Amino acid sequence: MNITHIEHIGIAVKNLEEAIPYYEKVLGLKCYNIEEVADQKVKTAFFKVGQTKIELLEPTSEDSTIAKFIANKGEGMHHIAFNVDNVTEALTDAEANGVRLIDKEPRKGAENLQIGFLHPKSTCSVLTELCQQPE
Amino acid sequence: MNITHIEHIGIAVKNLEEAIPYYEKVLGLKCYNIEEVADQKVKTAFFKVGQTKIELLEPTSEDSTIAKFIANKGEGMHHIAFNVDNVTEALTDAEANGVRLIDKEPRKGAENLQIGFLHPKSTCSVLTELCQQPE
Repeated sequence: MNITHIEHIGIAVKNLEEAIPYYEKVLGLKCYNIEEVADQKVKTAFFKVGQTKIELLEPTSEDSTIAKFIANKGEGMHHIAFNVDNVTEALTDAEANGVRLIDKEPRKGAENLQIGFLHPKSTCSVLTELCQQPE
Repeated sequence: MNITHIEHIGIAVKNLEEAIPYYEKVLGLKCYNIEEVADQKVKTAFFKVGQTKIELLEPTSEDSTIAKFIANKGEGMHHIAFNVDNVTEALTDAEANGVRLIDKEPRKGAENLQIGFLHPKSTCSVLTELCQQPE
C-alpha cells in the first residue's frame, strides 16, 4: 500500500468543551470543524497540524466504542489514520498480508473520507485507519 | 507556542523485531534507524511517514517507563511529539498557561532532538513531547 502521510490522530476525550481550550490556548492550534458522526456515536473536533489533523472524539452514547475505550483505558490516543491513494486497494493489500480487517469494504467517515479500519490484533495493538480523500 | 507539525508518534511495543515487519511489510514503511536511548531505557526504531516519524519504543529494562506503560495499558500509542521552533520558549509558554511540566528544561532525546515533556494531567491525558530540531 502507498501511504502518503498521517491523515489524523484520533484522541478520545470525555468532553470536547473541556478539551478544546487546551488545544487552542496551550498548543495554539485552531479548531476548524466540529462534526457529529451519528453511526459512530461520537462528536468530533478537528485541528490541523502541518499535514496531519488531530481529531478529538467525544462519545455521544454510553454504548459508543469511544465510551467503552474511555471506560477501559481512560482518555487518550485512540487510533492512527494513514492517508492512502486508494483505500479499497489498501484494504485488499492488508488482508493479503494476513491482517484482520474491521472493514472489508470502505465506508464513509468524518469529513467525507472513505475509510477502513484494521484490527489492532494485527497491528501491534494500534487501532489503525486507512483513509482516502474525497474526490 | 508555534507548532509546525507532528514530529513523531511514539508507540510502545514489547519487541522491535516482532513489530518492525508489520510496519515494513504491511504498511510499506522503511525502518531507517534503530537507536538505543540509555537514559530512557528503550530501544527505538524510526519510520518516516510524510512530515512525521513513527518511533517504536521497546523497553530495555523492567523499570523502564515503557515497560510500566505496557504492563498497565498494553502495547500501543504512548505519546505525541510536536515540533516547535524553540523548545525552551514553548515549555515556558506551556507553564505560563498552567501546564504541569515533566521537564522544566529541555534535554537531549533520540536523534539529537532537544525535547521536553508535558504532564498528561495537563494535556487531556495525552503524554505530550515538544521537540526542537538539532542545529
